[in-house]
Amino acid sequence: MRQNQRVTESLAQLAVGTTWDDLPPQVTHQAKRSAMNFFAVALTGCRDATVETALACLAAFSGGKQAALVGRRERIDALGAAFLNAAGANVLDFCDTHVPTAIHPTAPIAPALLALAEFKPVNGRDFLLALVLGQEVECRIGLAMSPSHYNKGWHITATCGVFGAAAGSGKLLRLNATQMVWALGAAATQASGLCECLGTPAKSVGVGNAARNGLWSALLAAQGFAGPPEPLTGVQGYFNALGETPDLSRITDGLGKSWEILKTSYKPYPCGFVIHPVLDCVLDWRRDHPAATVEKVLATGNPLLAARADRSNISTGREAQVSVQHAVAAALLTGKAGLDQFTDACVRDPRAQALRGKIAVARDARFSTVSAAVEIATANGAVHKLSQQAARGSDANPMSDKDLEEKLRAAAAGWNPRHDIEPLIGAIWRLDESEDVSKVASLTVPRD
Amino acid sequence: MRQNQRVTESLAQLAVGTTWDDLPPQVTHQAKRSAMNFFAVALTGCRDATVETALACLAAFSGGKQAALVGRRERIDALGAAFLNAAGANVLDFCDTHVPTAIHPTAPIAPALLALAEFKPVNGRDFLLALVLGQEVECRIGLAMSPSHYNKGWHITATCGVFGAAAGSGKLLRLNATQMVWALGAAATQASGLCECLGTPAKSVGVGNAARNGLWSALLAAQGFAGPPEPLTGVQGYFNALGETPDLSRITDGLGKSWEILKTSYKPYPCGFVIHPVLDCVLDWRRDHPAATVEKVLATGNPLLAARADRSNISTGREAQVSVQHAVAAALLTGKAGLDQFTDACVRDPRAQALRGKIAVARDARFSTVSAAVEIATANGAVHKLSQQAARGSDANPMSDKDLEEKLRAAAAGWNPRHDIEPLIGAIWRLDESEDVSKVASLTVPRD
Repeated sequence: MRQNQRVTESLAQLAVGTTWDDLPPQVTHQAKRSAMNFFAVALTGCRDATVETALACLAAFSGGKQAALVGRRERIDALGAAFLNAAGANVLDFCDTHVPTAIHPTAPIAPALLALAEFKPVNGRDFLLALVLGQEVECRIGLAMSPSHYNKGWHITATCGVFGAAAGSGKLLRLNATQMVWALGAAATQASGLCECLGTPAKSVGVGNAARNGLWSALLAAQGFAGPPEPLTGVQGYFNALGETPDLSRITDGLGKSWEILKTSYKPYPCGFVIHPVLDCVLDWRRDHPAATVEKVLATGNPLLAARADRSNISTGREAQVSVQHAVAAALLTGKAGLDQFTDACVRDPRAQALRGKIAVARDARFSTVSAAVEIATANGAVHKLSQQAARGSDANPMSDKDLEEKLRAAAAGWNPRHDIEPLIGAIWRLDESEDVSKVASLTVPRD
Repeated sequence: MRQNQRVTESLAQLAVGTTWDDLPPQVTHQAKRSAMNFFAVALTGCRDATVETALACLAAFSGGKQAALVGRRERIDALGAAFLNAAGANVLDFCDTHVPTAIHPTAPIAPALLALAEFKPVNGRDFLLALVLGQEVECRIGLAMSPSHYNKGWHITATCGVFGAAAGSGKLLRLNATQMVWALGAAATQASGLCECLGTPAKSVGVGNAARNGLWSALLAAQGFAGPPEPLTGVQGYFNALGETPDLSRITDGLGKSWEILKTSYKPYPCGFVIHPVLDCVLDWRRDHPAATVEKVLATGNPLLAARADRSNISTGREAQVSVQHAVAAALLTGKAGLDQFTDACVRDPRAQALRGKIAVARDARFSTVSAAVEIATANGAVHKLSQQAARGSDANPMSDKDLEEKLRAAAAGWNPRHDIEPLIGAIWRLDESEDVSKVASLTVPRD
């Protein structure tokens, strides 16, 4: 650890000093795409039992109806809304993904910014700028620790997301550089979240906290609540405790010149992104072949595929989102990989159960996390070999703007077919012209 | 890591299954002593600027006036009260200490239990039982990771305190064993807090969160919010991420038979406990010698003394609490080591500044954390050698019940000399006869 590298200060300077005019057009456009995807996944998750339970618990302690909950009529205090909207956006594993780190970057940040915008005037450019800068801080901290941090069991979306929420919220609160370091310090000392909780409701506690505690960190800093001068690289700081051997050059190289948000992918399938290239192969094959003939499937991918998603013995839809076996089985059975394929009912389907037993996962470090190979052996002795170099939705094979609009339309229709979501779609594409984004989240709430 | 050791389940069974009649009398008496000390330190810290700022920030989001704040007329929601009372109790480093781990065990737990008692009937025996069990869970998790966890930069009071608050709150909520595992899982995924923040207000975020998030974890579990079956020893669980090489036998050996609360010490001085044996030596010497003659001081102690408190370049009272140099300088100057010796003003005193430059710290692993040796060289060439085997207040040299009453009386008088604190002292000694502890915290609030 090079303690003389004051990387917290570098990140704080970036967050404080960068203006709208510093952002290239493709960066601001990507921020809108991330917002579109965020509202789609938040609408998809907003009625999940995890959100319902957390809301019931939080409401007992909440003051006022300060901020909107995506897709719901209830309102709650701003810290609570940040928690619940982040938890809901991430609960179904349908989020955007920063491919080099596997961080889901928008879920912890956007809810903090939207909550803040309901009690402080925020225009659309400031909102997009804060979203971009939050992601830059969050993803660069993640890059410095990847892949060891995630491999050690840290849920990187939560442990880095809290910095993104703090930096983005701090930007909207117009913190100076010293205050921004304090906000990042308060975030560092709240960084938490374990991969052991993936596949259970407890996952959502980590992701919800990232948004809530990041916002809380920035609010404290704005009131002068101080922290250490270098919380990231200090001797007893964040990297020492959570970071194994961080590569600090990944924080500083090209800072303010390249933009991590451009490495974000959006998911066509509501499950762990490491499973996506496998699903591409299986769905392609399934178009021309019946599932009944399948004897055996071998999915080979990056070691993260097996580490995160080699999971055949499951009983809930939540677990199915991180099970290669289930995703492949359901895709073979139905020819689809949508929300209906990751329900408790689909997991309990005896045909899916039987198919899951036929699917194996292998590790090969030559694969990236967005590529995979699949071998399907059928009853007639044939072995079909398929491969995907860049999963649909990944940065090299991105979803189009229209795809993202459709994802939001499908999410809105799934929740309430009579709710007109076009005003929200229009508002997102015109965010940079908006004088006040306080009502954007409310456009997700069905009126009837 | 032995994954087959389901230590979370063992701890959950202990917390769920233990009854008042299982506790030896010296354990329940020690719980009352811890409560006495808690109210003393919480009254001492309740007006600190850290608490004022955090209260101002939280109040904007808080619903209702559910729970008392120690020493203050404001009331706030139960989660907020848990945060603020824990932050206030720990802010001045005057807390109790579990000597084998350096955890301050009561600050994260008691505020959660007191807040819960204001919206759910809790009698005194259940309160004391929950306090004992919370400490047992918290300290045994800490033992399994000590000393590597703290040495890596984790603020162990926060990272283990969240489990104590969850277990204690879960006991009062009458969770079953499965729910208790869920509560400990939600706690595990919220465990955070960095030593880099010690000496700054950001420390209080970690300790406040431990109480708040532990209570929140238990409330979620009571509503059926599930988590992983073995959050502590699971492959991607707490110990893997935060624990280096845990010794799980320290969790299981003697569980339910020996009690960690008996290893708790209480502080006579409001600063890091590793400094205490040094202060004992210096104060003893100072009774018979003038400070002006001191040329040089060498304090030798356990390596933790230097790691935590070798800090000569300081500018605030907060930093002074973790500075051997300042503690010794102020004790030499005034012959005392009370709250007045750890103020910003005392740190800025030019005589203290000059003396701090004469004080050095050495490491010697043969010393325990409660022992130290001090050499004081004076202008006439003499070298005075002093040593302390068991610091005043440590488990081998404990504060008496009367000492603890006096500590509470001094704290109350320091805050408001007209406030009669005797009813609280009486209520604490009679906690096991109380049918309802909901008003205990309110006895700390001055009425005029």
